[in-house]
Order: sequence, then structure tokens, then C-alpha cells
Amino acid sequence: MTLDNMFNPHSVAVVGASSGTLNPATIIFLNNLVSFGYKGKIYPINPNVEEVGGMKTYPSILDVPGPVDHVISGIKASMVPDLLRQCIAKGAHTLHLYTAGFAETGEGDRCNLQQEIVDMAKNSGVRILGPNCMGIYSPKVGLSFCPDFPKDMGKVGFISQSGSYSLVVVRGASARGVRFSKMVSYGNACDIDECDLLEYLGNDPETEIIAAYIEGTRDGLRLRKVLTEAASRKPVIIIKKGHTEAGRRGASSHTGALAGDDQTWDAIIKQAGAIRVEDFEELIDVLTTFQFFKLPKGRKTVVIGIGGGPSVRSADDCERAGLVLHHIPDEMVQELRKTAPFAGSMLRNPVDVGAYHVEWSRVIDVLAAWPECDLFLWQITPDIEPFPDEGMYRQWCMDRRAMFIEDFVKSGKPTAVVVHMVERREAMDILHVTRELCIKHGVPFYSSVYSAARAIVKFIDYHNR
Amino acid sequence: MTLDNMFNPHSVAVVGASSGTLNPATIIFLNNLVSFGYKGKIYPINPNVEEVGGMKTYPSILDVPGPVDHVISGIKASMVPDLLRQCIAKGAHTLHLYTAGFAETGEGDRCNLQQEIVDMAKNSGVRILGPNCMGIYSPKVGLSFCPDFPKDMGKVGFISQSGSYSLVVVRGASARGVRFSKMVSYGNACDIDECDLLEYLGNDPETEIIAAYIEGTRDGLRLRKVLTEAASRKPVIIIKKGHTEAGRRGASSHTGALAGDDQTWDAIIKQAGAIRVEDFEELIDVLTTFQFFKLPKGRKTVVIGIGGGPSVRSADDCERAGLVLHHIPDEMVQELRKTAPFAGSMLRNPVDVGAYHVEWSRVIDVLAAWPECDLFLWQITPDIEPFPDEGMYRQWCMDRRAMFIEDFVKSGKPTAVVVHMVERREAMDILHVTRELCIKHGVPFYSSVYSAARAIVKFIDYHNR
Repeated sequence: MTLDNMFNPHSVAVVGASSGTLNPATIIFLNNLVSFGYKGKIYPINPNVEEVGGMKTYPSILDVPGPVDHVISGIKASMVPDLLRQCIAKGAHTLHLYTAGFAETGEGDRCNLQQEIVDMAKNSGVRILGPNCMGIYSPKVGLSFCPDFPKDMGKVGFISQSGSYSLVVVRGASARGVRFSKMVSYGNACDIDECDLLEYLGNDPETEIIAAYIEGTRDGLRLRKVLTEAASRKPVIIIKKGHTEAGRRGASSHTGALAGDDQTWDAIIKQAGAIRVEDFEELIDVLTTFQFFKLPKGRKTVVIGIGGGPSVRSADDCERAGLVLHHIPDEMVQELRKTAPFAGSMLRNPVDVGAYHVEWSRVIDVLAAWPECDLFLWQITPDIEPFPDEGMYRQWCMDRRAMFIEDFVKSGKPTAVVVHMVERREAMDILHVTRELCIKHGVPFYSSVYSAARAIVKFIDYHNR
Repeated sequence: MTLDNMFNPHSVAVVGASSGTLNPATIIFLNNLVSFGYKGKIYPINPNVEEVGGMKTYPSILDVPGPVDHVISGIKASMVPDLLRQCIAKGAHTLHLYTAGFAETGEGDRCNLQQEIVDMAKNSGVRILGPNCMGIYSPKVGLSFCPDFPKDMGKVGFISQSGSYSLVVVRGASARGVRFSKMVSYGNACDIDECDLLEYLGNDPETEIIAAYIEGTRDGLRLRKVLTEAASRKPVIIIKKGHTEAGRRGASSHTGALAGDDQTWDAIIKQAGAIRVEDFEELIDVLTTFQFFKLPKGRKTVVIGIGGGPSVRSADDCERAGLVLHHIPDEMVQELRKTAPFAGSMLRNPVDVGAYHVEWSRVIDVLAAWPECDLFLWQITPDIEPFPDEGMYRQWCMDRRAMFIEDFVKSGKPTAVVVHMVERREAMDILHVTRELCIKHGVPFYSSVYSAARAIVKFIDYHNR
């Protein structure tokens, strides 16, 4: 109930907002509430200024005329106990502490300060989010801390103990067409923690896929329980970092988290039926797959793309990840020969039929009809193309690419596109134009054959369980 | 002697050039000879046209008035025996067959055709490069098959059995500031093979670092010998693909190569003292390291960067790759506290001192003076920045970044910069501006902490042997 209110507050106060150039309360929170068209009431709080960005400020929470649901704190840690007292008096539901400088410092007095506010909040009616976190992204009501997060909502709910990961994952997944129901960066988790949030998202009808970046937990038993419940209802995908000693030390000085033993985590995640991923890149791949990939009949893959070296590599990468490439039989090779130039073609799977003079639609038809083709993987390497004549040749390439995507979609076979990351500045544009084509057609894309294959295998495994 | 001439020919004939829109002999070879300012004589050969691109054409090699050193063939495979006969009669040194459709097809008559030209060339004075390859990039004389390869030369010699890899590696490494002495894409290797080329580069005074992408060999014993000799003189870095059955099949249908057993390859490479890398991304990382990184005293690394999550991850990634992160002692933490804001800082290594209000130069001074700091790794994640106010904030970020790089250079400690790959189109520009700053200062950069650490460890291992 409180968490539902936290994601859908009717009013938000931003404490510490001013017109200072690098004032985070203003540039991260207040400005984004305005630019996202937040639907509720916005109250900047600051006893030292009259207004900020044309909005009237209030000296304190207690001076706000109406009720205040959600309070965002951008003030110093030492001032937080006082603010919390006011939140309790005002009857606020949640206090989000962007404010850092608590237990994550490892300093005794700062740990005590964190404990002090936890004790004060207990049974007070106010729940604390953070400290040391970015807070809430809830596109439905227009709550965001980043100006370029999508304004439309989707079906992924994401919780992140790291503020950076919340940015990297939402931006990265959005660039692939994924959209979010809710997202929360929850930092030190002194009160609202990963268990509360996973339980909430598990029951949230707006969330169909759950993702989480977790550095540690204080309650392994409860985590196991909520994780198992959530994963019995929807896919739950988890990044758990801190494999090494240095990583665990890092987690501790980041959010004060007890990282715990890696094998224990692995067991908890597996037993719960959740999916563990290595890092945010893989999380984005898996989210993209769950959102856009159609479930193939099996793992038998046909790889198509230009370039012999990349084709050889893609065969290695597919098999390493658990996909299967069957050898195209001689009769079919002869049939493919009619549609593609003889010289320079590879027709054994991987298939490389070159860029020019190919009846691509027929190649795809022939391959799609083959019983050993459950899915297509189309690999594109912008750094090997277009090399002669940037202008004309490039337009020609892009036009053909648009046609090819349509051919794959028409084939009815699940298709994944790999647009390899590029080094050249000039090739970035090719990468992005291709990606936009994929989004337009609802075709998932990835940045390497291995990462595509790995995500697809996890997706198939999930559905086979 | 012949190979030296192949990389430095006094005259080049391009056979099959015409003004057709997608004529590869013209757009890949002839046009690039002109645009690169090739220093020798250029002879387009075509019996059906009078001129191409304003240059007079000759009906055949035999009609060229002066001597012809290097011949590039863009004509059909069936016409190659005749062309080879003319090359022999003319006294050409090398025939580069861009032409494909030989043994890589796996078809009997095409394998025979390849054998026919090999037999004909034997002891004829003409060496064959290819077939099925892109040929030579030799910046010193202005020979190139790609318009955006660098025009200036460097110290890396690279041989690639794959044309795609030749493009991806030269473009990718160039984008990081690496430059090449010579590069050759050698395809089916029917005559000039990896052994000839490695032997040549091993003795080439213009080449200080050798790189190779190899799909297979016909002469394991000789390969072992030339590799050992070359690696005794200079670093030799090798991509050998085809780990899996599908990969080996791919290699065979790509260049007709016998991929061989992976463990045997591994042993040959190790015993020779060469460095095996996984793929082109790692090759580019290692080349960048050998070209720009200063040899550190040891593996003790200090990681600096913004963002808690990425910092935790970087600790994991460094240790996984073999670098060592020591815990910053309490006294030093207290010293660092004077230079950075208390809240939100991580001061234990990884170090995250946030973006604002930091005396960065002093932070670096303090860390550089620490005996447990052999090298710096600075990680930058453009997808977590700049988030408020693209315009002003971004300029501020870039100005600070320029200052910070200077601080690292001044510290005297070997420094690697990691600019994480980005998903957002808007962040690409930040990535590139940062990379250009690094190139300007001769500081190597990488696209992930793991890949940086892995390359640095291989570099240290090489020098410790």
C-alpha cells in the first residue's frame, strides 16, 4: 500500500531545492518532475529562498498547505533526523533520501545516524527509501530523475541498489525499445529493501517482467521466500555482483551491503527459479529477448550475415552459448546457389551470400522452409561496411537492410539481429539507423552474436522449465 | 624480396576495372589507389573500355608500356589462369586475387582450378596472394583497399586470413590511435601463406609488433618455426578461431582452411612465445596496450571513476583478469576525505569521489604516492552522465575530463582509461570526445574494465618472461 503510493504519489516535496547551478535537488529532481509533466502537486522546500524556477518554495514540509505523500531529500545527512520528524508530523508516506553520508561511509557516527533514523521511522507511518540513492522512476505519473528516460510506460519493473545501474539499464534497455512499469534505485536499503520491492513488483499487475541489481541483503530467508513467490508468477532476472573479495569490499563501501557468499546467492537464485545474469549488458539483452523475441521451437539456428571472418566467429559463439548450427545439406546448397553469386559465398551455415546480386528473399524462403531452422540470427558488422563511397553505397545498404528485415519478419521464424558495436565514429550512425529499423519492426537486437545467443538460450530455458 | 616488393610496388595493374556502379575492382582498389596518392604507376586493365575515372585503360597486362610489379584481379575465377599466364610473361612479381570462387567453395572443379594456378605459378617468378582476399594496405606507398584507413604509417604489421577482420582491426585499432606498418588480407593462402608473411614481418625493420588472424595452416612445422623466430624478436599476437565444430566448418567454407585441433594451436602459440587473444576486440586492446601503455612496476591497481555500481563491478573485473586492488588504509582515507565531499564518496579502492567539489589533482597526488599503486585505471561510464542539462553540464564535464587526463599524465603512473560502450545515441559523442582526448595525450583507452585489465595483464606477463 505504502509502496504503491510511493510509485504513484499525489504530491511530492523536494527538500533543498534552490537555483544554484549544481544544486542536485533542483537539477535531478525538481526540473525533471516539471519536464515529465508530473501529474500531482510539486512543493519545493527551502527556508532560504522565496522561489525556484518560478515555483513558490515553502520553509518546511510543515508549511505546505495540503498533504504531502512523497518527500525527496537533497539536504545534508546531519539535517535528515529533523526532516524525518517533520515528515512524521505531516503524515507523509515515504521519505526518499538522495542524501548520502550514512552507513556506506563505514564511519561509526554515520552508521549511528542511519540507525537513528531507522529507529525513528519504525511504526511512524513514514517509510524511508535509501539513503544514498536516486529514487523513483514511474512514467505513469511522470516521476523521473533523468530527463531522457522514456515518458511512456512498459512492462518491466526494475529495482537497483546502484543509482548508476538504474541509469545504465533504463537508458540502455530503452535504446532497444524496452519500456518500464516502475523503476527504483534504493541505495543503502536502511528501511525499504530488496525484499519489500520484489514482493511489491511480484504482486504488481502492471509489471510482467522483474529485473534487479542487488549488492547484498540483510535477510536471506525472506529474500528466498519473496524471490520464489515472484518467480512463480513472472520472469525475474537478477544481477548479483561482488564475486571477488575486492568486489565485496566495493559493495560494502558503496551501499554498506553485506555481499555474502557468491555460491549461496547462486543457489538462492536458482532454487527460486529466477534467472541470474552477469551484468547490466546481459540484463539488457535478456530484457530485450523477453520483451521482443518469439519463442522458437528449438535451438536450431541459421546464422546469416556478410563477412567470412565474422561468420566463422558467429558459429563458435552460437555453439559456446548453447545454440545449435546444423550443416546445410548439398541439395540445399545447390538451391541456394541459384539465388546468390557463386564466388565469395558461404552456404553451409553460417550463410554469407555477400552484399550484391543476391535474391535475399529467396535465400530466406529456402532457409526458413528447412526443418533444421528454428530461428534466424542475422549478424551485421558496421565496421566492415560500407567502405567504398560513403554516400551512395551507404544509402543502398540501408535501403536493402530495410527490405531484409521485412523478409525476416515475413518468414515467420523468430529472428534476432546482431549489430556489432563499432569503433569508428562514422559507423555509429549506421549502427543507430539499423537499430531504429529493428525497433520499428519489433525485432530484438544485440551487440554481439555471443550475447544474443546467450540471452536466447536463457529465454528458451526459462520457457522449457 | 618478392614480399618486400608486394608491399612496396613501383606499379600496380587493376584488372577488371570499369565505371560500373558496383564494380569492385574500381571502387575497392582503383579509386583508393588514387585517393591515397599511391606513389607508383597505376594501370587499369579492361579490353572493353577505353578509360575509367579519367585514366586510360589497357586491353591486357601485356599491353602496358612499362614494367608491372603488382597485379590486382577483380575478374571471374575462370579467367584467372589466362591472367596468370600474362603476369608470368610480363614478369610481374605478385598477383593478388581479390577474385573468389576457388577452393573455399568446396566444389571439386573449383579446387582443381586453384590447384591449376598454384602449379602454374610454381617457379614462374610470380607469387599469388589469395584468392578470395582484400590484399594489401601499405600506407608508406599509398596502397589501400579502404578509403578511411589512416594515411600515416605506424609500427604494427598485421596479417589476416579474413578480409572482414582486416577492416575491423585496422579501423578499430586506428580509432584508438594505433598505426600500421603493413597489413595484408591473404584469404585462401594458396601460395603466399601465413608462414611466408610471418617470416617477412619478423624480419621487417618497419614492423615492431606483429598481429595475425589465422583460420588454419597447411604446414604446422614451418608455422611453429617462423612463429618462434618472429616471437623471439618482437611481440606476436594471434587470433586463432574455430574452437567449435561449427567454427571449423565455417573456416573451411570461408577460406578452405584446415582449422586443426584447438589444443594443438594453443600449444604451438604458447611454446613459440606468442600471445593468443580471443578475438578482434581483444587484439585491438592488446595492440593499444603495447603501443601506448608504460610498463608498470607490478599489478597493483587503483581504480578511479564515478558511480558506485560501476566501481563495485570494476573491482570484480580487475581481480578476475589478474590485477590486484589493495585496500586503502584508514590514514589515507582520512587524507582523501580532505579533498572530496564526505557524502557519496567511496575511498577504499575503487575510489569514487563523485563529479563535483573534488580536488581531483590532490586525490591523484595522494594515490600516486601510495606504494600500493603501480598503475591507475580510470573508468568512465557515459551512459550514467551527464544527466541534468545536456548543454552546460556536459561542457563542464568535458572540461574537467581534459584536466583530469593531464593530472594522470603528470602523476607519472601508467594510466589506462576505460570509456564504457554506450547505448544512447546522445552518449556516443561523449564517448568520442573522451577518446580523442586520450589519443591526444597518448593514453590508451578501452571499452570495459575487464578488457583493459586483461590486456594490461598480458602486457605485463609478456615483459616478465
